[in-house]
Amino acid sequence: MLKLFTASEAQQTILRRQRGGDSTYPQSFLDGLAQHFGPGTTPEGTVRAILDSIRTDGDEALRKWSAELDRVYLDSLSIPVYRFEEAYRGIPDDLRQALKDSAARIRSFHERQPLPSWTTGEMGGTVGQRFTPVQRVGVYVPGGTAPLPSSLLMSVIPAQVAGVSEIVVCTPPEPDESILAAAYLCGVDTVFQIGGAQAIGAMAYGTESIPAVDKIVGAGGLFVTLAKQRVYGIVGLDGLAGPTETMVIADASANPAWVAADLLAQAEHDPLASAILLTPDATLAAAVAAEVERQLANLSRRETIRFALEHRSGVVLTEDMDTAVMLANDYGAEHLCLAVEDPQSLSEQLYNAGGIFLGEFSFEVLGDYVAGPSHVMPTGGTARFASPLNVLDFVKLTSIVALDPDTCRHLAPTAARIADAEGLSAHAAAARIRLQDSTGEKI
Amino acid sequence: MLKLFTASEAQQTILRRQRGGDSTYPQSFLDGLAQHFGPGTTPEGTVRAILDSIRTDGDEALRKWSAELDRVYLDSLSIPVYRFEEAYRGIPDDLRQALKDSAARIRSFHERQPLPSWTTGEMGGTVGQRFTPVQRVGVYVPGGTAPLPSSLLMSVIPAQVAGVSEIVVCTPPEPDESILAAAYLCGVDTVFQIGGAQAIGAMAYGTESIPAVDKIVGAGGLFVTLAKQRVYGIVGLDGLAGPTETMVIADASANPAWVAADLLAQAEHDPLASAILLTPDATLAAAVAAEVERQLANLSRRETIRFALEHRSGVVLTEDMDTAVMLANDYGAEHLCLAVEDPQSLSEQLYNAGGIFLGEFSFEVLGDYVAGPSHVMPTGGTARFASPLNVLDFVKLTSIVALDPDTCRHLAPTAARIADAEGLSAHAAAARIRLQDSTGEKI
Repeated sequence: MLKLFTASEAQQTILRRQRGGDSTYPQSFLDGLAQHFGPGTTPEGTVRAILDSIRTDGDEALRKWSAELDRVYLDSLSIPVYRFEEAYRGIPDDLRQALKDSAARIRSFHERQPLPSWTTGEMGGTVGQRFTPVQRVGVYVPGGTAPLPSSLLMSVIPAQVAGVSEIVVCTPPEPDESILAAAYLCGVDTVFQIGGAQAIGAMAYGTESIPAVDKIVGAGGLFVTLAKQRVYGIVGLDGLAGPTETMVIADASANPAWVAADLLAQAEHDPLASAILLTPDATLAAAVAAEVERQLANLSRRETIRFALEHRSGVVLTEDMDTAVMLANDYGAEHLCLAVEDPQSLSEQLYNAGGIFLGEFSFEVLGDYVAGPSHVMPTGGTARFASPLNVLDFVKLTSIVALDPDTCRHLAPTAARIADAEGLSAHAAAARIRLQDSTGEKI
Repeated sequence: MLKLFTASEAQQTILRRQRGGDSTYPQSFLDGLAQHFGPGTTPEGTVRAILDSIRTDGDEALRKWSAELDRVYLDSLSIPVYRFEEAYRGIPDDLRQALKDSAARIRSFHERQPLPSWTTGEMGGTVGQRFTPVQRVGVYVPGGTAPLPSSLLMSVIPAQVAGVSEIVVCTPPEPDESILAAAYLCGVDTVFQIGGAQAIGAMAYGTESIPAVDKIVGAGGLFVTLAKQRVYGIVGLDGLAGPTETMVIADASANPAWVAADLLAQAEHDPLASAILLTPDATLAAAVAAEVERQLANLSRRETIRFALEHRSGVVLTEDMDTAVMLANDYGAEHLCLAVEDPQSLSEQLYNAGGIFLGEFSFEVLGDYVAGPSHVMPTGGTARFASPLNVLDFVKLTSIVALDPDTCRHLAPTAARIADAEGLSAHAAAARIRLQDSTGEKI
């Protein structure tokens, strides 16, 4: 089931990152769209129609789409706040405790992130950079077959640590109790039961019930991603999430059963998920493949796992560790796990990854729930330029310029000279007027 | 020419930020497109066609578009590196010195920006966040009627400070000598003479001559912005730039001639630029309006200025300073200038702005060229969530998780419990296998 690749085979297949090009969708999916929206409808066209109607018709459009797409007739778009505490008290004690422990570590981790506003007096007067929190943030929490209370904690808590004053959550209708419990646990009191592209549109444009936010974070399915792409620039975004990925680099010291368990955990998320092992050790490769077969029998999401492992996953037998490092940096995995004898020194060679998990005791599932960093991480190779969700996502910088008069007079001729070269005479004049009026000197 | 508004009039007109909705384009512009691309062509459609052809045909497409759109037949897409030094030696001595002084202050400012990677040992083992530079960055430098060597400095230097190892510049064909001189000054040796959407496509997808980059920064015109929107998610972006904006808050202490000069400087950029004065002082408002008329006569870009001042600009007479603060925070200006008696205490109330310029000696034109911070700042109200270009734009975080075995065993049950609630049995299994194998304990 888990295929074996050489490095160059893998580069042509499972490790290949395509830049652009239109996605192809399964025919059954397109048929479903056609049924709802008429023949020839594309996902992009559907999302455009949903967003346009929300911008124009607000709540009315949200109700219409919920009825049409989710088969839910919404009386109130928001979930009454007493339901959160009810849910929190109603879930099993050990789950409540687990969510509390998770939230505490996520908070503790993000509270340590430095956010250094600064100024200097050494450049003439005062210049610097000041961090301020984003005012209103929208968090999308996916629902569906696997409701993820952990996603709520992993998105909301960094925003709270940043000092965001208003947090709005959207999640598909009739959310699981565990999601409401998580909202209660972190003190969120605004949850709207709106899913998919509708939620993104509502938070981007605002409706009668749902306030327009400044930034939207959180992953979702295809429609959520297409909607986020469309509102890019109107609101801030955390990025576009694709299918999740784990890459494991292992050597002979690795425990094949543990590596197999980690690959299987990754594969159960999504048929399009990637679970990739890089190893120079052929014995380990074979042992992991056998363990995957063995452990699969006991797992509930077998079909998803099997599909994921047979498509975008596999074992890459590399010539040596350096090749594994090169492939990992090129790939830029969301999760990069180091099941090797000296993970610390290996980690220093790796620069493109959302999260690096050092050693087999720091396995990725701990990162999904309780290690501390947010599990919302860059996918699809975007780790080349993007970061896991963190406190910086919920603040912005303002440049501070407070020069003293002497520095102003000293710098004004420089500004005027470049403005002249750029053909901007009003810029030059604004610089020169400071000098003439305050010194009588003409430049 | 400069219209007067009350606060509520201004909120309905010049201060209004529209979220979404299709842009309307002048008919003459659409006619021009139709001539090139056939009847009914939209800017969006044009950009899609340009990007698709570059993805498919690479350099050949770049040559075709340069001939068609820029009327330039390119032999080599890149500009030979000896031309940079030639340009640097060839520009006037005082301009060379001004560019050097500007570059030195930009570098000095950004070198002070803290980038604190961190780890803690207090959460069981080691967890933290590590900054690493983006590997390859593409900088777009606009050409056209006002060539901006300053834009090259303001984009390239923060990237260099961040440690970016490869910087590629694209600028429209046959760039001004001052742009090449600026490239030489900061040690850039790769400049391609490709402009508009073509440049963005080339850097996003890569061609035979132009390497695909990890992140693209820099502002441009409409086609550049539409192209950036389309490649969002494939490469990192600094944001989408709209027309530039300056807001001045002034009280009776302000010098009307200086305020007028600053508004005029802003207005000369673009007919769509905004230059807005907020003041509770009617006498100052009248004096500034009169000064604007008077100074305009001496300026070369009168037509642009007049159009800008009559459309998205004006003087807003506010009831008091608090109203001005409220309007400024709602608007989220790119540049916010405080021509008031106590700019420091006013600045503390302002949280949505790209840059705040405190006092009339810290005028915006200094910020455009030489104060230190990058002049690439968030426009269109995106200061609600976005920052001026800075060192953080050229790095990304990786979460580091290196838990010790005891902490792993302590946290694994928590992870397993939440995984159970989420219906992810392979996740739970990956947690439990660590416990069984290492402790014999079953959870």
